[in-house]
Amino acid sequence: MRVLGVDPGLTRCGVGVVDGTPGRRLSMAGVGVVRTPAEADVAERLVLIERGIEAWLEEYRPECVAVERVFSQHNVRTVMGTAQASAVAMLCAARRGLPVALHTPSEVKAAVTGSGRADKAQVGSMVTRLLRLDAPPKPADAADALALAICHIWRAPVTNRLQEIAAAHRRGTVPVRLPKGIR
Amino acid sequence: MRVLGVDPGLTRCGVGVVDGTPGRRLSMAGVGVVRTPAEADVAERLVLIERGIEAWLEEYRPECVAVERVFSQHNVRTVMGTAQASAVAMLCAARRGLPVALHTPSEVKAAVTGSGRADKAQVGSMVTRLLRLDAPPKPADAADALALAICHIWRAPVTNRLQEIAAAHRRGTVPVRLPKGIR
Repeated sequence: MRVLGVDPGLTRCGVGVVDGTPGRRLSMAGVGVVRTPAEADVAERLVLIERGIEAWLEEYRPECVAVERVFSQHNVRTVMGTAQASAVAMLCAARRGLPVALHTPSEVKAAVTGSGRADKAQVGSMVTRLLRLDAPPKPADAADALALAICHIWRAPVTNRLQEIAAAHRRGTVPVRLPKGIR
Repeated sequence: MRVLGVDPGLTRCGVGVVDGTPGRRLSMAGVGVVRTPAEADVAERLVLIERGIEAWLEEYRPECVAVERVFSQHNVRTVMGTAQASAVAMLCAARRGLPVALHTPSEVKAAVTGSGRADKAQVGSMVTRLLRLDAPPKPADAADALALAICHIWRAPVTNRLQEIAAAHRRGTVPVRLPKGIR
């Protein structure tokens, strides 16, 4: 499975492509940052982000896009830009028919380091080890994008199973597995 | 000047097209709502909003798009969806090279009713009078989109002048008009 991870932001949008399946070795296909100038209008910056994400989708052809789920507890100003950048990333993926997965920052940290409260340095260091890189990817947004992709690869089987159950619930056909010996 | 006003939202995105210039009669060219199903994924909903906005831009060919400026003081859940929907509206406009203007809800209310604290009914009633409609457009999102367009038409001369001054400041060529008699 090839996943594009996107750490959304108006100024710096981290992007990282990881190949892998759960329980197997992971490998990095590409990593980078889509930047937009702070002095440009928000609308122009969103156009630049769209172009950047499109270029990554076009070049790496991921099967799935994992985007950081944005919460509004944080800094008010930053959150709006982050929500807008994440909207563009989701739009680019869904427009191509690619599944979009959202993971919270603590899910990503927990998946990669074992702790939902890990700091940037710990995430960077684990990403470096898991992908057998020479040094942590810089800036931190790039490392975070790779962490998102890794998190998605490892969580996908669980998430897919939960989605199947939720869909079955909606259809009213909840699959119940009876213990052995009971019919 | 033809303006498309967009009152952004994931469930209902109000859209309204108004023709006019400051000091002249205004007229409505079109009004409606782009809706997306609440049960769909956010990414899919953003694709539907993009298609909807594109259809309005294609049909009405506005010269400018006015979008409500989103603040995060409000309800946390709603604000994220509103920020995402507004990002798509801004993107669609800027991608076509159309100028995008953002107006706050109180700027819109003040422009249309004279009070920044007017309620939905007052805005709807003033929009109805200003555009000489038979009844207030429904739902409120549609009336708000028209109010945004009207606000933009009336504020545009002021906004343009302020933007020129700001641009001149950035270039270091601030135009200073000296009082008569002074050289």
